[in-house]
Amino acid sequence: MMTIETYLAKNKEEIEKSLFDYLQDESIPSRLKEAMEYSLKAGGKRIRPILVIAGAEAVGGTAQEVMHIACALEMIHTFSLIHDDLPAMDNDDLRRGKPTNHKVFGEAAAILAGDALLAEAFYILSKPPFDCNLKQMLKIISDIAYATGARGMTGGQQIDMASTGKRLSEGELKHLHNLKTGRLITVSVTSGAKYCGASREKIEALEKYGKLIGLAFQIADDILDIEGSEEEMGKDLKSDLKKGKATFPSIVGLIRSKMMEKSLIEDAINVLSDFGKSADPLRGIARYVIERKN
Amino acid sequence: MMTIETYLAKNKEEIEKSLFDYLQDESIPSRLKEAMEYSLKAGGKRIRPILVIAGAEAVGGTAQEVMHIACALEMIHTFSLIHDDLPAMDNDDLRRGKPTNHKVFGEAAAILAGDALLAEAFYILSKPPFDCNLKQMLKIISDIAYATGARGMTGGQQIDMASTGKRLSEGELKHLHNLKTGRLITVSVTSGAKYCGASREKIEALEKYGKLIGLAFQIADDILDIEGSEEEMGKDLKSDLKKGKATFPSIVGLIRSKMMEKSLIEDAINVLSDFGKSADPLRGIARYVIERKN
Repeated sequence: MMTIETYLAKNKEEIEKSLFDYLQDESIPSRLKEAMEYSLKAGGKRIRPILVIAGAEAVGGTAQEVMHIACALEMIHTFSLIHDDLPAMDNDDLRRGKPTNHKVFGEAAAILAGDALLAEAFYILSKPPFDCNLKQMLKIISDIAYATGARGMTGGQQIDMASTGKRLSEGELKHLHNLKTGRLITVSVTSGAKYCGASREKIEALEKYGKLIGLAFQIADDILDIEGSEEEMGKDLKSDLKKGKATFPSIVGLIRSKMMEKSLIEDAINVLSDFGKSADPLRGIARYVIERKN
Repeated sequence: MMTIETYLAKNKEEIEKSLFDYLQDESIPSRLKEAMEYSLKAGGKRIRPILVIAGAEAVGGTAQEVMHIACALEMIHTFSLIHDDLPAMDNDDLRRGKPTNHKVFGEAAAILAGDALLAEAFYILSKPPFDCNLKQMLKIISDIAYATGARGMTGGQQIDMASTGKRLSEGELKHLHNLKTGRLITVSVTSGAKYCGASREKIEALEKYGKLIGLAFQIADDILDIEGSEEEMGKDLKSDLKKGKATFPSIVGLIRSKMMEKSLIEDAINVLSDFGKSADPLRGIARYVIERKN
């Protein structure tokens, strides 16, 4: 049996191969393509596209079938990182140990590279490579647009910007992160499964799983910002504190934060009780979310 | 018979009614919603959504059928205006006589409002309100994403930024504007018609029409930047010159620019020779493109 580390590494490699292929297109202005590629190639765990694949596999699908959805979600994630790093937003100079996009290409090109990656994601989603249930495909596009826009990630980033320097309650912080990271992680898990024709019950379970690991993922990030190694994280630590951002440890304390992430992961694994061995990668990912070092 | 002015005014009113309805959603964070609404409600000619409707009507469809596509295209156009006005891009303080989005809401909120409008457009497109040909709907989404992203508007803006202060040839300027404004205008004309089941021949004619009026639209804009009235334009004039942007009058002269726009409009009307009276609005819009005062 494959360990979760092997599973993640194998899928990361496959995803990156497809991801970089999408931009091999002479009709994209070269400087814009460079800026888009720079951030796409800057590494990262590729958690969202891996969740698309693991969600598909959990209901009997294959990685190959849902690779376009996986790549679209990584493009959307990358778009959000480029924009979040901008001087007007979090003003970060480093991301994954490398200068951020606007540090290399300038602010204008960074804004445009983000915009172009977002549009590219919907371009890819609207051209499924295999015969598929078209109604389902439109529903997946709608789910992803919802999770990306004002009611999801972008709305969460707006709340995040507006809350910086303010005290938040635990509930407010959970709401912020449910929008900012939770919805896109959840839609990653469900999209692949929907594309492969999963039943309504299965989708509902996967939705719960996504929401639980999404929150655990954020708590783990907050903990790593305090306890992680700068080398492994590839960025300045304690950056949340310096920026006056509310974090789970700052609101509920480090010990309670660790209890919360553990219990979220237990719940996420329990939610999958009706799934067989094919959901083992999802179970492994759930554990990995809080055990990772970066 | 309705004059083109009445046609434009009537459709603008209908479009705005629908457009503003889309954001009546409590689940959008209020400050983000405000920023999105501010720019959506800042007026404008609504040319792109009107073209969606006129394209549909030219092949026997109705405004009501394609209103969602019309609104999505106006959202994409508005997203591009907000981002183009940012300090890192064209650094404009006024748009349609009002302070630009970032002047009112700050840069972070302006970037996010643009992002959210782009995502919202695809959200709307993926939820067609009527039974429709789903394969066609996916094709329309793909056309629109293509025209919006790296191979269209966003790519054009990147070339525009990179060319500022440089001498361009007439061909290079045409290419820039074909990407930056031409592709979105063209896809506006074809999307409504495709949704209403137009034949391949009709779509090809509409595509040519869109490309021709798109270029004429840009030449007319360049001429208005020199000859227009600041009051009617709602912004500083001679701004292209001040910013060192290449324009048609600066490259081929004012007289030749006026000849070019006239001949493009004649060609656009000729391309519609196989269409009956139902394409009269498209013919009227073609003339309006170069006769307008703002």
